[in-house]
Amino acid sequence: MNEIEQLQQLLKEKHLSYYIVPTDDDHQSEMVGDFYQFRAYLSHFTGSAGTLLVSQSEAWLWTDGRYFIQASEQLPENVTLMKSRMPGVPTLTEFLVENMEENDVLGFDASVMNASFILDLEENLDFDLKFEDIDLTEIWKDRPERSHEKVFLYDNKYNGKDTSLKLEWIRDYMDANSITHHLIASLDDIAWIFNIRGNDIACTPVALAFAIIDLDKAYLYLQKETYDQTIIDHYKEKNVFIKDYEDIYDDVAALDGTLLVDLGAINYKLFSNIHCEFYDETNPSQYFKAIKNETEIKNATYAHIKDGVAVTKFMYWLKHNIQTGHHTEISISNKLEEFRKAQEHYIEPSFETICAYKENGAIIHYKPDADHNAEVKPEGLLMIDSGGQYLEGTTDITRTFVLGPITDEEKRDFTIVLKCWLNLMNIVFPYGMTGVNLDTVARAPLWEYGLDFRHGTGHGVGHFLSCHEGPQAFRPYDDESARIEPGMITSDEPGVYIEGSHGIRHENLLLCVKSEVSEYGQFLKFVPLTMVPIDLDGVDFSLLSPKQVEELNAYHKEVYETISSYLTEEERNWLKGFVR
Amino acid sequence: MNEIEQLQQLLKEKHLSYYIVPTDDDHQSEMVGDFYQFRAYLSHFTGSAGTLLVSQSEAWLWTDGRYFIQASEQLPENVTLMKSRMPGVPTLTEFLVENMEENDVLGFDASVMNASFILDLEENLDFDLKFEDIDLTEIWKDRPERSHEKVFLYDNKYNGKDTSLKLEWIRDYMDANSITHHLIASLDDIAWIFNIRGNDIACTPVALAFAIIDLDKAYLYLQKETYDQTIIDHYKEKNVFIKDYEDIYDDVAALDGTLLVDLGAINYKLFSNIHCEFYDETNPSQYFKAIKNETEIKNATYAHIKDGVAVTKFMYWLKHNIQTGHHTEISISNKLEEFRKAQEHYIEPSFETICAYKENGAIIHYKPDADHNAEVKPEGLLMIDSGGQYLEGTTDITRTFVLGPITDEEKRDFTIVLKCWLNLMNIVFPYGMTGVNLDTVARAPLWEYGLDFRHGTGHGVGHFLSCHEGPQAFRPYDDESARIEPGMITSDEPGVYIEGSHGIRHENLLLCVKSEVSEYGQFLKFVPLTMVPIDLDGVDFSLLSPKQVEELNAYHKEVYETISSYLTEEERNWLKGFVR
Repeated sequence: MNEIEQLQQLLKEKHLSYYIVPTDDDHQSEMVGDFYQFRAYLSHFTGSAGTLLVSQSEAWLWTDGRYFIQASEQLPENVTLMKSRMPGVPTLTEFLVENMEENDVLGFDASVMNASFILDLEENLDFDLKFEDIDLTEIWKDRPERSHEKVFLYDNKYNGKDTSLKLEWIRDYMDANSITHHLIASLDDIAWIFNIRGNDIACTPVALAFAIIDLDKAYLYLQKETYDQTIIDHYKEKNVFIKDYEDIYDDVAALDGTLLVDLGAINYKLFSNIHCEFYDETNPSQYFKAIKNETEIKNATYAHIKDGVAVTKFMYWLKHNIQTGHHTEISISNKLEEFRKAQEHYIEPSFETICAYKENGAIIHYKPDADHNAEVKPEGLLMIDSGGQYLEGTTDITRTFVLGPITDEEKRDFTIVLKCWLNLMNIVFPYGMTGVNLDTVARAPLWEYGLDFRHGTGHGVGHFLSCHEGPQAFRPYDDESARIEPGMITSDEPGVYIEGSHGIRHENLLLCVKSEVSEYGQFLKFVPLTMVPIDLDGVDFSLLSPKQVEELNAYHKEVYETISSYLTEEERNWLKGFVR
Repeated sequence: MNEIEQLQQLLKEKHLSYYIVPTDDDHQSEMVGDFYQFRAYLSHFTGSAGTLLVSQSEAWLWTDGRYFIQASEQLPENVTLMKSRMPGVPTLTEFLVENMEENDVLGFDASVMNASFILDLEENLDFDLKFEDIDLTEIWKDRPERSHEKVFLYDNKYNGKDTSLKLEWIRDYMDANSITHHLIASLDDIAWIFNIRGNDIACTPVALAFAIIDLDKAYLYLQKETYDQTIIDHYKEKNVFIKDYEDIYDDVAALDGTLLVDLGAINYKLFSNIHCEFYDETNPSQYFKAIKNETEIKNATYAHIKDGVAVTKFMYWLKHNIQTGHHTEISISNKLEEFRKAQEHYIEPSFETICAYKENGAIIHYKPDADHNAEVKPEGLLMIDSGGQYLEGTTDITRTFVLGPITDEEKRDFTIVLKCWLNLMNIVFPYGMTGVNLDTVARAPLWEYGLDFRHGTGHGVGHFLSCHEGPQAFRPYDDESARIEPGMITSDEPGVYIEGSHGIRHENLLLCVKSEVSEYGQFLKFVPLTMVPIDLDGVDFSLLSPKQVEELNAYHKEVYETISSYLTEEERNWLKGFVR
């Protein structure tokens, strides 16, 4: 019996018709710790996003375009891959509405189940949902324990605003909306508000925590093993009290007054414990956090210089050493990590490095591992999407490197993606535009060739925090897309993925800044934070417009001026060659 | 006492706190007949869109960016101009919510008041709205009578689909949604469904009418004077029965079952008469109507060839005659109308011609009249936005003509707008994109210069019907923007407006057609229906990308190939000069 069959056996014993296994923790985090990887354990699919649905005789796994190829390779035969957003593929909710019958019982572990998802399902069903809150991880052999790493205070010299001030902003918002309590489960919001960091999720310096903010006091719920008296004292001064992680459920149940809560960002067990009046709204800290303050911008800029030096040095090494020696995707990833580690205040990667050679590049979120670790030779394309967590900020960069001869198609695709990337980086736009408005310019050059990419063009990036954060994004569809505001940091990462052949992506992080004011209001533009050249060996200049040639050159000039003093003479001379 | 003061006098007598005068008829039409121009009578503002709010001592007029300059010129001193969508300017609803007090009574004529507007206001007020349905047109001296022109049947050879088939589509939709009745007040929907045309609104060949569609029968409500026995007999065969226009209110009141109705497209009096269960949804005919069938496309293409010939002949005349004789905006408009009238099956303009010389071009919807009729000399720019109603279809075109020397700024702006126009016309995009996604490419070149335009980039166009129709549009903001589908006809009309100096707009109608199918699905593109050259005297080729130069040339080649055989030899030779 494989793991799915074992679960199906259990469903029969417990009289459950369906069981949902999301990829979530108690906090609805995007990336989750090993303790929460039940979905990966059951389905063998190791991608970061996916939801498994198991009935007594069948099983389905929903995931998005980044993971179609990987999932189809990893899933066992008895799990059907459901390709999200593809024509004719129902969402999980639609599937359940279509297939569930009135007497069916849906099982799930409410502490890791999104509250909005269940509420939405209930609204869409023609009958009352019968469900059981049940944890079936009993079949999970050798389940890792939950992480409980020490938390630490994140200094104001890096974050720029004291917790007291952030609480004041949130309380002003609460007060204006007649709110008396605010429940927060999202780890990045909590880390940002309380200027606290931890290490409970790989690549994201957050601590497992909950918080309740009242109009005068606030409560921070942490795992016992993770803090000491210094932390307690530090917060006491700010009228913030540390409580036990597990106490949150009882404390929510006891709340009186009016509660502000983002039902999309809490688990269903928390929701079930709310007995007071509540307003379902995005956590206000999502917006405050996205607009970086001057200290954060200064620090992030510095983090990007260090990261730019590391990646540019790596690029020099790669271009000059690929001809000799034995290289694999993993050995090259490790080499890149060495260059990052040489930088001061480097903590860890900001996500698992994607190092994808030739056709592996077409698997959007490919990661080399023991079973997949291609030998890398002096030919074809190598795409590396990686990032670093520095005390000063979070980086995220993709470059595609030309290791030797490439095909005309590869060169064409490399250049078209470059056009997309330049278009977005250099757009000037009036205040009021969202990522939906701007996304198009980063796709239109690909569309001309019947190409596209099945992922967003860009995501918000945290400050020494999550590599992915809201509320803004560059995406073609997004009902709640936020306006792009000065101070936001967002990625610009168009790509093209040709299955069985090659994958190309170019990614910079862009800081939104003010441009001119005209009678049409405040105009905005982007400045790139990422400081690493584009491999010109991949560029067919005849496909660039004169404007794009100028833009590429201006970028390389800026890269040279910003990082060349941190390079060796050889590296510096080589980098100079990018400025034409 | 001016008209506003007279109304204020009446408000005092009737104990009304506020009175709303929209620019609407019983059908919530975009353009309304003279009988319904009470807002223009009261406020002196003659633009096509605007809402007047009058209190006992003040008055406010809301209108959009097309009309800011015109309204500020026309409004009397005691009316405050409210610039819709400008920062800090409340909507009418927001204004009323902010200013109305619990005992205030709001007056309006419910038969011309949008139902959704009132429902939305009620929802936003903290107290119950007190209102009086009252017609105050008693103060309107010499009010014109309501139009009641003869209706006529629109032949299937032009419309392509019989009424029976259209009713079948609508009934399938009703049936699938458990609907038993469908109330329609919008005149273009009724004209399209019943293949009927009329002449009750200038420039739009519709008849004042209502309709109720049941699952087996349908009822068409027409003014008595407008139809004869032929009409009655024609429809009887299709189980469609003609009833008196005024009967609609009683018939709606008597409805039983479930009603499909678009509350945004009916008046509040109709809404008040609904006593059965209802679903508020866009009329399904809006979507069916927007996707033109093969017969409509064939006919519309032909209408555009005729219109192209007329406007190109006019352009030849203008460019060769402006040097001599005395010309004004009106005399030039009349000349253009002469060329259109020479075409077979030309009925009337599809909207009032905008013929705007030099700085008048900056007034987005400027129309010359007795008081504003500039002399046109052989210098500067002349913008003409005009269209025709032909039996075969509706046209809408803007060209900006160079009449002699122009400034560098004018030439630059002419060219930037051309870039915007070419970008949208030539975009290829995957199925699923809405006008919000595509709008950006038609603005980005202007944004680079801190420029923009305060109107949508494009609107749907009817088939021998309204010049503006939904559900699709090219706009930066549009929560309900429809996907662009093959068969839709939409305008592409970016512009730039420099107050006191010049206005430039280039407009083609674009037909959406299928492009290639790739692994990313069905791609779509546009083919231009409009066949009139761009005045190359305005183009600074150094600002165009090589791709844009090619696109412009390809368009001129197509124009030449399509219409040259209908021109004189001199005209033909001249037109050939546009192909480079």
